[in-house]
Amino acid sequence: MTNPTACLLVIGNEVLSGRTRDANVQFLATRLGEIGIPLREVRIIPDVPETIVAAVNETRAKYDHVFTTGGIGPTHDDITSECIAAAFGVPWEPHPEAWARMERHYPPGEFNPARQRMATMPRGATLIDNAISIAPGFTIGNVHVLAGVPRIMQAMFESLAPTLEGGPPIASRTVHADGVMEGRIAEGLADIQRRWPALDIGSYPYYRMGGGGVALVAKGVDAAAVDAAAHDITVLLRAIGGKPVPGEPPV
Amino acid sequence: MTNPTACLLVIGNEVLSGRTRDANVQFLATRLGEIGIPLREVRIIPDVPETIVAAVNETRAKYDHVFTTGGIGPTHDDITSECIAAAFGVPWEPHPEAWARMERHYPPGEFNPARQRMATMPRGATLIDNAISIAPGFTIGNVHVLAGVPRIMQAMFESLAPTLEGGPPIASRTVHADGVMEGRIAEGLADIQRRWPALDIGSYPYYRMGGGGVALVAKGVDAAAVDAAAHDITVLLRAIGGKPVPGEPPV
Repeated sequence: MTNPTACLLVIGNEVLSGRTRDANVQFLATRLGEIGIPLREVRIIPDVPETIVAAVNETRAKYDHVFTTGGIGPTHDDITSECIAAAFGVPWEPHPEAWARMERHYPPGEFNPARQRMATMPRGATLIDNAISIAPGFTIGNVHVLAGVPRIMQAMFESLAPTLEGGPPIASRTVHADGVMEGRIAEGLADIQRRWPALDIGSYPYYRMGGGGVALVAKGVDAAAVDAAAHDITVLLRAIGGKPVPGEPPV
Repeated sequence: MTNPTACLLVIGNEVLSGRTRDANVQFLATRLGEIGIPLREVRIIPDVPETIVAAVNETRAKYDHVFTTGGIGPTHDDITSECIAAAFGVPWEPHPEAWARMERHYPPGEFNPARQRMATMPRGATLIDNAISIAPGFTIGNVHVLAGVPRIMQAMFESLAPTLEGGPPIASRTVHADGVMEGRIAEGLADIQRRWPALDIGSYPYYRMGGGGVALVAKGVDAAAVDAAAHDITVLLRAIGGKPVPGEPPV
């Protein structure tokens, strides 16, 4: 069984301008890996309708799941929801259940037209609960539309996750060695990658006060092969005089 | 004069797996904005040759500048440089000046085949200096190939930046107000956006211990218009009983 794949579209001028540092990629990358739906691509795109529609249509054809973050608030620059409707070629209309939830939530008179936009969705959307601030996300086809605020995005994802069917989980083992430079182990590491072609063997140098080293990661669905490759990595590091330690280097 | 545009390709399985949190998007977004070459798109893609080649060719046709980060080290998973050569349809061969710099840097016998890969580049590449760890980046056509390690990437970018011709700088003013919810100002803000169609008016809710509020940002090349829009935003926030403060909310 192969793993289903995921793509993330981060929608927002504020990330592209440098105003905001994205905090959603790493959360979704980690959680999707845990449930066996590895993230294969991320695009950060601006609040431009044609750009959003084109990116949604290209990626929903290419990946099993597409997640979007951002652009579902009440202000004029929140245009994700109507762009998803345009991408699917369906009407963008009040969603009765979303409308009812929000109408109950706000004091009389405060469920104004701007907030009503947050209850307006592509026809056929299924709600994703928002335990933090009521206004729901939604799924249509294989596209899951989440908030951009990390705390709300995470709550929405955890409400959605039990409904997603993942493939086998990805096993991973890391070995690091202080003081070892990538250039000295590159050839031996390439041999290990050739020995375990079904695994991903990654090499990540790190730098910190007083030195640095390299973290070597073996990943794959075959946990026994991952263990064996981690053993080979340990042997390689010892052979060049390194002191390999299992796990990530301390920060 | 319109501004030239930029796209960033972050190349690396480690960001897509969640192992590493990207630290380069925000730096490049900010610096490119400062020199008047706004970042219009970011893609995070895996270490897969066909994916890298396709992304390079699609984006270099679409944007004035393409920056890549990651994948130019000495190990088997560092494949950016040969993929760029394939994208441009030119040979991947030793670069005499890069080779000479690295040969001088390493003790005799340590400029091994793995490190020699770092001095192998697409024919016609121009070097980008690396003041931190010698091995240079390079420019070919409108594609600028930088390291993935943030400290090295930043040094490479600053060495490259004086050679990039930007458009007019983007002016920006932020006004924030604690306790104001987006849904109460959305309609007034849309009016302000209509009054200043050449500006980007952005609305960014924030949350923190004991409350939150909204930060409103006006941006554009016309600094006088940005000031006037910031004034309109201040008037709007006062009208609904908020206490507007210039600048970003304190963290």
